[in-house]
Amino acid sequence: LAESRARLSRRGEHAFLDSLCERLRGRAALTAPAAGVLVGPGDDAAVVGPGSAPLAITTDALVEGVHFRTGWLAPEELGARAIAVNLSDLAAMGASPRWTLVAAIVPPDLSTAELDRILDACAAASEDAGAAMIGGNLSRGDALSLTVTAVGALEGRALERRGARAGDRLVVTGTLGAAAAAVDVWLDGGEPPPALRERFARPVARLAAGRALARAGARAAIDVSDGLLADLGHLCRASGVGAVVERARLPRLAQVAIRDGAGSEFAAAGGEDYELLAALPADFDERAIADLADACEVELTIVGRCTEAAGGVHLLGEDGCDVAPRLGGFDHFATESRRRGRQRP
Amino acid sequence: LAESRARLSRRGEHAFLDSLCERLRGRAALTAPAAGVLVGPGDDAAVVGPGSAPLAITTDALVEGVHFRTGWLAPEELGARAIAVNLSDLAAMGASPRWTLVAAIVPPDLSTAELDRILDACAAASEDAGAAMIGGNLSRGDALSLTVTAVGALEGRALERRGARAGDRLVVTGTLGAAAAAVDVWLDGGEPPPALRERFARPVARLAAGRALARAGARAAIDVSDGLLADLGHLCRASGVGAVVERARLPRLAQVAIRDGAGSEFAAAGGEDYELLAALPADFDERAIADLADACEVELTIVGRCTEAAGGVHLLGEDGCDVAPRLGGFDHFATESRRRGRQRP
Repeated sequence: LAESRARLSRRGEHAFLDSLCERLRGRAALTAPAAGVLVGPGDDAAVVGPGSAPLAITTDALVEGVHFRTGWLAPEELGARAIAVNLSDLAAMGASPRWTLVAAIVPPDLSTAELDRILDACAAASEDAGAAMIGGNLSRGDALSLTVTAVGALEGRALERRGARAGDRLVVTGTLGAAAAAVDVWLDGGEPPPALRERFARPVARLAAGRALARAGARAAIDVSDGLLADLGHLCRASGVGAVVERARLPRLAQVAIRDGAGSEFAAAGGEDYELLAALPADFDERAIADLADACEVELTIVGRCTEAAGGVHLLGEDGCDVAPRLGGFDHFATESRRRGRQRP
Repeated sequence: LAESRARLSRRGEHAFLDSLCERLRGRAALTAPAAGVLVGPGDDAAVVGPGSAPLAITTDALVEGVHFRTGWLAPEELGARAIAVNLSDLAAMGASPRWTLVAAIVPPDLSTAELDRILDACAAASEDAGAAMIGGNLSRGDALSLTVTAVGALEGRALERRGARAGDRLVVTGTLGAAAAAVDVWLDGGEPPPALRERFARPVARLAAGRALARAGARAAIDVSDGLLADLGHLCRASGVGAVVERARLPRLAQVAIRDGAGSEFAAAGGEDYELLAALPADFDERAIADLADACEVELTIVGRCTEAAGGVHLLGEDGCDVAPRLGGFDHFATESRRRGRQRP
């Protein structure tokens, strides 16, 4: 009974989702070979095999007041961001976007001009990634939200969260922490510097990187939406490994240091950057990784390595000692959200 | 400028969507053969052809306070209904459901037990229709909403909205008006009789009917979600035809007559029944239609016929004269919604 009265805010989104995915995976509809399901619930995207061509399918929402606030983003940026966060899930599977659908919940007083700008930006951002916006839905509601479904084609096997092994090198694309730092400045009533704002307003799905990592034989990957450590935790749980990440190695823009210590906090736990985190076999040396970065069309940084599962997931400070980040990973239902972590260390 | 200040509540959902679909259809991403788009935006579902197997894809949302109110539906009914309204769009294309995804926006105080019941019902309703629930998303928000994406397989050609010709017979599956009558009773503070409540709480996607109609050579079809006349209008516009429907022929449960005249009003304009409306070539006589009803696994009723486009869309009363229904079709953004039509004839 206590359990049945639990609220999501207490139980936590990820625990709830883990339990839901567990139940879904046990259902006959998913386990039957006829279902054509190659990767079921719980990864960045599901993978289905209609006939010979496997497709990756994912859905993700941006909700006003939760993922953004009015005034933070221009209508074009909101539309493009809603598409990008979905394409990022396809990128993490190594898939190439083909089609998108956009289901909008819209307050009745939103101007049609603004809605046109949002939805045209969804179409344009889809097109820029090689996908066609083929449909959607429009409903009334009190808060604006955009729920996008993206479908991508896979050339070979999907890059799943599971598959990493002890000894693998962990690499991330691009830089971390800027989007979370921008949000932090907004929540403090300020206006983030352009370099930070840009990373929140115009995230770039690492599509070429996802494909290149899959082709090069990366063992596992995930997109960094909840924060590096949280998403690393998802990857480690799915793979049955532990991990060690060195804080000093986390790539970040200088501007992320909006106050003492904030730079490494945001990089380790900030989230919403939509970079990729991947596990590469240990025989990838720095030279091989530099070559791979060319194919990825973005910087790749070695940030740590996978260990045996019993080791757990650790962030090491500059002195080699364990440090726990003060910010938690993003959990929509957490009572103490990441965004309050700074005030409540 | 006047236009740019227009609100959706004034301009109307369908006019907005028509304009959006028009723009989308003109985009290079949709017109390029490489996009593999067989049916683009503006139909019940989009159809894409990855390799040889065409897939129908659709997305639709149920939003608390717009499509239902707390207390009207048990959690199981809400989950099943969210799936059914999407499967109905697949049915209208003649597709067989294969996969579903469920993106939920959830108030933080919803109990996990209730959310479990909602999402498990989504999985069960998918399975009952032969589909596997392969993924989804969970976000916080003030009002509960479920945005489902459903993907179906097509055996042959898709049953589109366009394709009807003057002289075609118009048929509908099942009965009309019960769901809207149930909502009307709820909005009046009452509790609808079980026969009406059931049709709102547990709509049945007419999947066998959609496939049978496609196989039998139906020229066009649409699911009746906005109200028969509104959806007939969509089909006629897409097909470039007009239509005449006889009010006396509209199939309805006796219970729909919750007050004088309400029965035929709800049947003609009520919506949310998720029956199918299809255009059959004129050489389908009553005998052929009776045989087709067997394959459809549901009653089929001839309600009218298609005419030349110039004739427009007409509802004829028992005396053969034009009647205009007092209730408008469902428009989320209409200032005068269907549900106030009764008070404001």
